[in-house]
Amino acid sequence: MTTLDDFWAVIPAGGAGTRLWPLSRSTSPKFLHDLTGQGRTLLQATRDRLEPLAQDRFWVVTGAAHREAVVAQLPEVDPAQVVAEPSARDSMAAIGLAAALLERRDPEAVMGSFAADHVITDPAGFRAAVTTAVGAAREGWLVTLGIEPTFASSAFGYIHLGEALPGHDGAFAVAEFVEKPSPATAAAYLETGRYRWNAGMFVVRPGVLLDLLAQGDPEFAAALRGIAAEPGTLAQVWPQLPRIALDHAVAEPAAAAGRVVVVPAAFGWDDVGDVDSLATILGAAAGGSAVLGDADLVHALGGASGLVVPGSGRTVAVLGLEDVVVVDTPDAVLVTTRAHAQQVKDVVAELKRLGRDDLV
Amino acid sequence: MTTLDDFWAVIPAGGAGTRLWPLSRSTSPKFLHDLTGQGRTLLQATRDRLEPLAQDRFWVVTGAAHREAVVAQLPEVDPAQVVAEPSARDSMAAIGLAAALLERRDPEAVMGSFAADHVITDPAGFRAAVTTAVGAAREGWLVTLGIEPTFASSAFGYIHLGEALPGHDGAFAVAEFVEKPSPATAAAYLETGRYRWNAGMFVVRPGVLLDLLAQGDPEFAAALRGIAAEPGTLAQVWPQLPRIALDHAVAEPAAAAGRVVVVPAAFGWDDVGDVDSLATILGAAAGGSAVLGDADLVHALGGASGLVVPGSGRTVAVLGLEDVVVVDTPDAVLVTTRAHAQQVKDVVAELKRLGRDDLV
Repeated sequence: MTTLDDFWAVIPAGGAGTRLWPLSRSTSPKFLHDLTGQGRTLLQATRDRLEPLAQDRFWVVTGAAHREAVVAQLPEVDPAQVVAEPSARDSMAAIGLAAALLERRDPEAVMGSFAADHVITDPAGFRAAVTTAVGAAREGWLVTLGIEPTFASSAFGYIHLGEALPGHDGAFAVAEFVEKPSPATAAAYLETGRYRWNAGMFVVRPGVLLDLLAQGDPEFAAALRGIAAEPGTLAQVWPQLPRIALDHAVAEPAAAAGRVVVVPAAFGWDDVGDVDSLATILGAAAGGSAVLGDADLVHALGGASGLVVPGSGRTVAVLGLEDVVVVDTPDAVLVTTRAHAQQVKDVVAELKRLGRDDLV
Repeated sequence: MTTLDDFWAVIPAGGAGTRLWPLSRSTSPKFLHDLTGQGRTLLQATRDRLEPLAQDRFWVVTGAAHREAVVAQLPEVDPAQVVAEPSARDSMAAIGLAAALLERRDPEAVMGSFAADHVITDPAGFRAAVTTAVGAAREGWLVTLGIEPTFASSAFGYIHLGEALPGHDGAFAVAEFVEKPSPATAAAYLETGRYRWNAGMFVVRPGVLLDLLAQGDPEFAAALRGIAAEPGTLAQVWPQLPRIALDHAVAEPAAAAGRVVVVPAAFGWDDVGDVDSLATILGAAAGGSAVLGDADLVHALGGASGLVVPGSGRTVAVLGLEDVVVVDTPDAVLVTTRAHAQQVKDVVAELKRLGRDDLV
């Protein structure tokens, strides 16, 4: 794997991760945590797996409240390339701002945007897919990576593969992006072999991205280019930008216009969406056990299984509960089951309702 | 209820309470804790319910390590009447020492011995039963209180009622003490209406108790009386005393000899043996919920039920688990179910095996 001299990695580092409460907080979101127990946070691991391709060519876009932590976690990245969003405006504004900054700095570049809070177990496979994507992006395509589904998930959007792209082995036209399907529809998608998970990974020349945006919302694209030209206007312009996902603003209309390409790939991707997913990443099948942190602090007896996160230094004893989840932090402890993983966000909602912003 | 001028209350304050870990520790056993959430520890509540009968006539016998805490919790009791056992020698030595001390101080007295770590929800009913017992004890009987069973427990020994005692309404001869029965035998006992739980409560003149002991083990009785005569010999003599329960040393042989009387009673007794029992005491039927401590710290969602003890000041969120038990303390948290309450002692055994004496 050689570096790609024209490739820049963009890392949007946002998202609350409320289903990973109390590990993930608004003051310390998911990407700042080591959720694999391998000594690197999700943000650091995202940089690590891109570094062989991008070297020092990174843009990180994050909330103003997290910029200091991001800079501290990424000493290899020039702090000037860590951009603070004055407020959360969804992915189009965040990634579009990075595109506008990059367009001015290196108009011939190709950028690849990858969320800061995903786990990938095969970084070499990931880089091979990105390299293929960069080849297509150089020719003006908007390229996405399509994750090979490992089960009929109804939690992800899907990418419907079209024809193979001539001259680019491993790349296909995108017939369409489809929203999160019902479980039955997801199962039908898997049967065809022509659908991939949409992980929100895009590889594209910055000017192409902004021009595609301009086709639907010329003012939005102009505003982003205006900020890049005069960074001092960021705080004034930013609050007026639309809150919209890149998928809706650009990817879906561009696919309809035949402008999007997908590189299907399987590289052990997981978005660590909840504690059940976290348990799986840590090696616990249903009925199995995993510890994130110091295993010496955990004592499981009486057939206890599941996930324990001893995050406060205290001893955690679990007796006789299967597929239980215990997340221990200095100010809050969560006890639930893997089956209830999706509902953890209800706890966060309840705490917010009670005005406990200190805990969420 | 008037005071009984010849009545002294003896409170043996011992026992590890391992099934209530991590709330109860060897350094801070069950009786030092407020387990009813009413602002008094079990030890304090034991004194409170006896005070109308005994006024300031108490002997408390506890481990040397706990004497300071006991004295601090009982400012109403003369510290000279709080006796420290140099080591744990079971109930015969502890209660026998109190008997020997009392025999020298007030040979005509009647003593009643009641464990420091039981809960009684009807103190007036308890005092009425004790008063009946004192009447029989004055005539030289060894008197025990027999708790009306509320279910066919196989966790307690039983007292088999004999004939009514002439001249003492509410008192009966004890036919025999029987060990913890099988569930089927316990159910058969309940059918007869002639069996009561043995809660280890004894009312007796101190000289009678020591003389009964002397019939089986004259050296033991002499050793206890020797310590009372020369308290300076306690540390030297104590380690040589037999480790035996009062039931075995005195009550069972005395019952066989026709010397024991029982006062059957129902006054909401519970020995708070485990977290399931604790949940019941706090008002949670199966499927119900209880909090011991600050309920504002507990958030139960998704149909969660059971017992939560927020004992470290941290927020505890429970999602979707029925009849779960979460005990949160500053250095350890236990997660289990009410059905596994008896096995909590296995956690303590495991921690001891690992040399974690700091936690047990």
